[in-house]
Amino acid sequence: MENRSFTYDVLKEIQNRWSPRAFDAQKEVSREDLMALMEAARYAPSCMNEQPWSYIVGQRGSTVFAGIEAALSDSNVEWAANASALMVILSKEQFSHNDRSNRWHLFDAGTSWGYLSLEAQKRGLITHAMGGFAADQIRTTFAVPNGVAVIAAVAIGYYGRREDLSEAMAAREKPSPRKPLDEMLFIPLED
Amino acid sequence: MENRSFTYDVLKEIQNRWSPRAFDAQKEVSREDLMALMEAARYAPSCMNEQPWSYIVGQRGSTVFAGIEAALSDSNVEWAANASALMVILSKEQFSHNDRSNRWHLFDAGTSWGYLSLEAQKRGLITHAMGGFAADQIRTTFAVPNGVAVIAAVAIGYYGRREDLSEAMAAREKPSPRKPLDEMLFIPLED
Repeated sequence: MENRSFTYDVLKEIQNRWSPRAFDAQKEVSREDLMALMEAARYAPSCMNEQPWSYIVGQRGSTVFAGIEAALSDSNVEWAANASALMVILSKEQFSHNDRSNRWHLFDAGTSWGYLSLEAQKRGLITHAMGGFAADQIRTTFAVPNGVAVIAAVAIGYYGRREDLSEAMAAREKPSPRKPLDEMLFIPLED
Repeated sequence: MENRSFTYDVLKEIQNRWSPRAFDAQKEVSREDLMALMEAARYAPSCMNEQPWSYIVGQRGSTVFAGIEAALSDSNVEWAANASALMVILSKEQFSHNDRSNRWHLFDAGTSWGYLSLEAQKRGLITHAMGGFAADQIRTTFAVPNGVAVIAAVAIGYYGRREDLSEAMAAREKPSPRKPLDEMLFIPLED
């Protein structure tokens, strides 16, 4: 796969996952698969087991899907409208047991999304997370209260045909590269 | 497994992972395994492909391990000192391409840690992330610059014997429960 090379044999879901844009507008994602993604997200670890994350999820054709789609940036809606489902990742900013600020809530929500993304890959689904959307509009549309962060949108579905993308999008339709492995380490491993 | 039940057949690494404290103080984790964890972390998705995360990693007996251990809270050092490796998760707060604040850096670092934790599980390693440590001390010990967040510490190693834990820790040595599956959804799925 272009831009991907592995020195170590890591989980095949990690090796094969990337963030495509060529979704198949004909395919539907099942309720069963979507709930399995919620189950995967559910079992992520979190600070004090707070589980700060929650998800807005809508299948294509639903009012929830339309509400998320309407908040996407133009460059995202162009391809993400073909996804079988759209999702928004939310996270509670305070600990439930004492109402104090939870400085790990975004980190923990990211872990939960990580689990979800690999479970999707296992099920043959593609996922693409997006920062390009109007978070305030999501907050209004879905009555997300203050104290709950609107973090990211995600397109979920099945791979379609690269040829159906616009020329600009087709040119970007490949896995992104990564920094060299050694740069993962802030300090080199001691011998 | 106590406190864990799955309606959906998610990745077995997700089903089997939890955060134990009974590390085996006799076992060593190989360099190969630690680098494979870095490889798993490396291929997480991130906003603008920034890859804001990096890791401080030390095997037991190394000066890096000692430096992390010295910063752990008393209640964590009691059991985490037996880990085969200790890690600290860092994250760059600004985008590299324009030096502007990256509001997804903690979220993306969490995704990276999620991938790492499942790869560890696949390799028979146990992991336990900790918020209880002196982040400022880590910053000083390892010269972590301003603009790089010190997020969490992680103990990595092999399962030992629950009987070797203190009575207080042994009583807590079981998987934590989760909210009901339906509570993952901010809004119920439409029919």
